[in-house]
Amino acid sequence: MSDISRATALAHPNIAFIKYWGNRDDALRLPANGSISMDLAGLETRTTVRFDPALRADSLSLNNSAMTGKGLERVSAFLDLVRRMAGFDLRAAVDSRNNFPSGAGIASSASAFAALALAATKAAGLDLTEAELSRLARRGSGSACRSVPGGFVEWLPGSGDEDSFAVSIAPPEHWPLVDVVAILSGAHKPTGSTEGHALAGTSPLQAARVADAPRRLGICRQAILTRDFAAFAEIVELDSTLMHAVMMTSAPPLFYWQPATLEVLAAVRQARSKGLAACATVDAGSNVHVICEQAAGEAVVKLIGSIPGVREVRAAQAGGPARIVEVE
Amino acid sequence: MSDISRATALAHPNIAFIKYWGNRDDALRLPANGSISMDLAGLETRTTVRFDPALRADSLSLNNSAMTGKGLERVSAFLDLVRRMAGFDLRAAVDSRNNFPSGAGIASSASAFAALALAATKAAGLDLTEAELSRLARRGSGSACRSVPGGFVEWLPGSGDEDSFAVSIAPPEHWPLVDVVAILSGAHKPTGSTEGHALAGTSPLQAARVADAPRRLGICRQAILTRDFAAFAEIVELDSTLMHAVMMTSAPPLFYWQPATLEVLAAVRQARSKGLAACATVDAGSNVHVICEQAAGEAVVKLIGSIPGVREVRAAQAGGPARIVEVE
Repeated sequence: MSDISRATALAHPNIAFIKYWGNRDDALRLPANGSISMDLAGLETRTTVRFDPALRADSLSLNNSAMTGKGLERVSAFLDLVRRMAGFDLRAAVDSRNNFPSGAGIASSASAFAALALAATKAAGLDLTEAELSRLARRGSGSACRSVPGGFVEWLPGSGDEDSFAVSIAPPEHWPLVDVVAILSGAHKPTGSTEGHALAGTSPLQAARVADAPRRLGICRQAILTRDFAAFAEIVELDSTLMHAVMMTSAPPLFYWQPATLEVLAAVRQARSKGLAACATVDAGSNVHVICEQAAGEAVVKLIGSIPGVREVRAAQAGGPARIVEVE
Repeated sequence: MSDISRATALAHPNIAFIKYWGNRDDALRLPANGSISMDLAGLETRTTVRFDPALRADSLSLNNSAMTGKGLERVSAFLDLVRRMAGFDLRAAVDSRNNFPSGAGIASSASAFAALALAATKAAGLDLTEAELSRLARRGSGSACRSVPGGFVEWLPGSGDEDSFAVSIAPPEHWPLVDVVAILSGAHKPTGSTEGHALAGTSPLQAARVADAPRRLGICRQAILTRDFAAFAEIVELDSTLMHAVMMTSAPPLFYWQPATLEVLAAVRQARSKGLAACATVDAGSNVHVICEQAAGEAVVKLIGSIPGVREVRAAQAGGPARIVEVE
């Protein structure tokens, strides 16, 4: 191995405009359909990986707490992929920190595995292309592959492990969109995404949602490239509802929407019908991401913040790719 | 024509367990899929039709108000079908009264056209079979065909006008279910059913919902026949969510659910997971129909009545068929 054995990487979470829900292959995390997202600037996971012959086992510190059990096992299984690529068997100490709180309405697994993939491969002396890194991150958490490239990103579902990775379709500065997250009071996430993906196929609607995905991807990609907010808004809202339709008709059904979720969705639809350039999307949780043009940001924050049941509002612009911040 | 020229009929509204949404043929109201419902006892439309050579035009009195415009036109077009069957051209005076208020969370078009079909044909001296009457009622409002037979009713979608009608699959006393309607504060119906049906095909999910309907009909029919509440509850909730999934993903999207709708749905799911024999279904509106076994009725009324956002609770048992109450 090379002389590098310690590296720190940074990655942003992302918000999906065309959602990932359900896998063709759960083990490889090959998605049922392609997806499109935007990295979220200002929010970040910063992860340091140190491979060390003195370590007897992998360790994981998450936001300064030592992790054991499932969380550590998932990271350790991911590090096995890196060790196989590097051709060595050293154990690693992983230190990962998010600058955004859990329960902030933003999933951390995407930024976590994107940062881990970059830090671990760099610490192992590997020099991966962006596509290779995206493929690797996908193995830790599907949507993590979208946190590797910068700006507006599309995950190409591919035909197998080799060609299922994300690419940037436009840099962050291409379109100054803002994600205004409405964080609801008492919101909690009843079912984790990994378990949820496995249920997608039990919905009578999933096949139709997946079959229609290329059409939605085409409309969304085109709307981003041409900065067509009206077309963008319509397809983003449709796609989010389609995913929740599948979730709510799974066996067992998954209702992520809370009453206040519907309230925010209705307020955004109404405001848009009156000319506000804003639309709403909901991930596998109850918080609402209101996507708007920068000029509408202030009005959106005011609108959303005034809704009872919204505890907090947080805004993020389009962010850059995962990157190395330190090597040793 | 025969000597009868005036008749009064009564019909109950119905609540669908497997929903009707979307037509194969809008003009003939041939449904995209079969449906199953229960007539609601205690709630009724009472309609008198009088054919009279002295009348220059059809007239309609609805709850003691003279109607003009669209409402009268729809009734007049329906009476044309009856006049064609009877082979005469007399105009009619129609007086129709509901014993339940508009906005009570119960659609009146089903009971209205079932009662009208029966009263008008009887007043015209026609003596139709139940199937013929159901077919005719369907032309006025699709779900009206299900208010013609009694108890638990299935609308057979048929291959055309001739064989698209409803039949009773079990009498009212077969299974003492109760429909506890949670009427929400400030609920309003943003889009009428007739317009909504026409939008169904614009959802990417409608074809999948329709293709899966025979499976759901089979499960629901069997659950009713064997009084299997657990199987009944699961399929009724799934079917309702499937219809709203189609509505919310139509172009334009139709969101009938209000925040309090979700609140009631969640409360019922939770109570059922703790053993309460209750499930919930939502028609093309925001009010929630909680279907329960009679023994659970009191607990359901208490549970639903305590939810903020529920203005009123109203209960109905399984009702009988449309029937003639007076002829002259």
